[in-house]
Amino acid sequence: MPAPSSPITQKHTPPYYWGIDIGGTSMKCGLVDHEGHTVSFEQIPTEEAAGPQAAVKRLTKLMVETEQRTGTTGLVKRIGMGAPGPMDLPRGLLVAPPQLPTWNDFPIVSRLSEATGRGVSFLNDANAAAYGEFWLGSGAKQSSMILLTLGTGVGGGIIVENELLNGVNSFGSECGHILVDSAPDAQLCGWGGGRGQLEAYASATGVATIARSRLQTAPDSQLHRCLDAEGEGLTSKQVHDAAVAGDQLALSIVDETARWLGIAITTLVHTVDPGNVVLGGAMDFGGAECPVGKRFLDGIRSEFRERTFPNVYAGTTIRFATLGSDAGYLGAAGYAKKEAATP
Amino acid sequence: MPAPSSPITQKHTPPYYWGIDIGGTSMKCGLVDHEGHTVSFEQIPTEEAAGPQAAVKRLTKLMVETEQRTGTTGLVKRIGMGAPGPMDLPRGLLVAPPQLPTWNDFPIVSRLSEATGRGVSFLNDANAAAYGEFWLGSGAKQSSMILLTLGTGVGGGIIVENELLNGVNSFGSECGHILVDSAPDAQLCGWGGGRGQLEAYASATGVATIARSRLQTAPDSQLHRCLDAEGEGLTSKQVHDAAVAGDQLALSIVDETARWLGIAITTLVHTVDPGNVVLGGAMDFGGAECPVGKRFLDGIRSEFRERTFPNVYAGTTIRFATLGSDAGYLGAAGYAKKEAATP
Repeated sequence: MPAPSSPITQKHTPPYYWGIDIGGTSMKCGLVDHEGHTVSFEQIPTEEAAGPQAAVKRLTKLMVETEQRTGTTGLVKRIGMGAPGPMDLPRGLLVAPPQLPTWNDFPIVSRLSEATGRGVSFLNDANAAAYGEFWLGSGAKQSSMILLTLGTGVGGGIIVENELLNGVNSFGSECGHILVDSAPDAQLCGWGGGRGQLEAYASATGVATIARSRLQTAPDSQLHRCLDAEGEGLTSKQVHDAAVAGDQLALSIVDETARWLGIAITTLVHTVDPGNVVLGGAMDFGGAECPVGKRFLDGIRSEFRERTFPNVYAGTTIRFATLGSDAGYLGAAGYAKKEAATP
Repeated sequence: MPAPSSPITQKHTPPYYWGIDIGGTSMKCGLVDHEGHTVSFEQIPTEEAAGPQAAVKRLTKLMVETEQRTGTTGLVKRIGMGAPGPMDLPRGLLVAPPQLPTWNDFPIVSRLSEATGRGVSFLNDANAAAYGEFWLGSGAKQSSMILLTLGTGVGGGIIVENELLNGVNSFGSECGHILVDSAPDAQLCGWGGGRGQLEAYASATGVATIARSRLQTAPDSQLHRCLDAEGEGLTSKQVHDAAVAGDQLALSIVDETARWLGIAITTLVHTVDPGNVVLGGAMDFGGAECPVGKRFLDGIRSEFRERTFPNVYAGTTIRFATLGSDAGYLGAAGYAKKEAATP
């Protein structure tokens, strides 16, 4: 169990909110107070094969027990739940979700609401992470923000004047699927379509694919050693490690990834002009703590500066996220708080 | 004076709002009732050289006289004013606007407000047009919408859940400046930067430039006749006319423009998922009334379908605007109405 970014504390302010971050393998469950302090955090297996009704039971049990233990019974106002898409937000269910096939079309929101007797705010997991950073992380005290999550894929979340863009088709801010490369032979996204879309360039998968395709041009690169007997393998983490060791090919891939992100951020900023762009997810080349991560961020800023207007560049910060993998449950709780306050 | 799209009628519903659409050469001034009917419409010269204070005087005089004539004195609630950017919305002024150099840094909102004794809602002209289509045109009765205006440049406006995206740097929804072409030799926008941005491809200027660059490849095209002695000239209107006459080069340029717009719309929809995309402006290849305009729209839809997800394609309409050049003043009035209602 990872330590939550917002420390579990004895001093907390009622009312409380549950933030649930559903994933393909585990469900993160945080009980969060009104100011965003985590009262209790637990990560339990999703057990996807057992189906969503079993998950509802285990979530409900966890909530009841946790509230008894922490003395918050009767003080929890609402549940927020983020889940991977595709989803139908108004109907409160997932639609053919590749990570959770047994959950397809199951009315998860109404069932969890019935089981707990509480209202459930439902949102896309990347949007939940964005709302978490917006409430408590890198976007705190701002009115608008874009989060790009660089992981196995690329997700995104957009907040404009304190409102999350969920989208008319529950497809709001799928920033991994904006176009960055118009070349006819541009890379394809994992979903099989989406030629030239950001996810094919700035995800862990995309970076590894690009690195493999560049190996021929760099016979001396240490990345050759990462390939397995079939010529496969080689991960974005290995690209990062090689870049830290000064490998030229690895560094050029960091720079190239930064360039694609700079293009994507230009397009996103010219669309919603949020003033703040935050980069989250594990595929951050070490983030703010690492010289390669710093080079990555500088490269992104430099490409953005070249493509935008001086006043827009000056009025837009680009930085790394601070909540790590806690952003999802914290954002789900924060969104529940927001919806509880909305008449 | 063009006939307003919403006919001037004797039956109107108080209160009233002024919608002012400021342009480099003229100012459109519409007195609009609560339901969007135009009570009076006048277009007066901007007289940019005389400066903005003179414009404030003439606008104020026009308002007083019109209200006396139409019996609406005392019934006008607020003024909406759209203007070309760049601008600083919170400060209520234009910043180095290329079309209105004498207006630079002049506090137009506070001066107009002082002169008329009324509140002034200030917005970007393309955003005003978007709000007009959203209130009374192709986006009516929807919750969200994107407008792309295809004119000398490409502008845009985005409404999400009834709220206009104005942007933190007053740069919201500059959709002409999203990336569509990542090639190193991609075309440049008029502002001198912005390589590969939509405006260089889907504006009247962009289409004419592309047509000229393709002439060599099509010796039989009737577009050769449009060039002047210097090899210049050739407008997007002439490309449209030639396409109507069946000219193959002209038709291929219509198709190419559609392809770039399909790419741009994919990116915009994957960012905000509005369910509705509306195409306005004169560079519409004849729009819905014309077979070439229909082919243009079909081409856009087809490119979008290829690049997006089936449910997003199914959940998104793309159509032409219906308010023509009245969208700006109507949207400014509608936005004034909206802001008058906001506590």
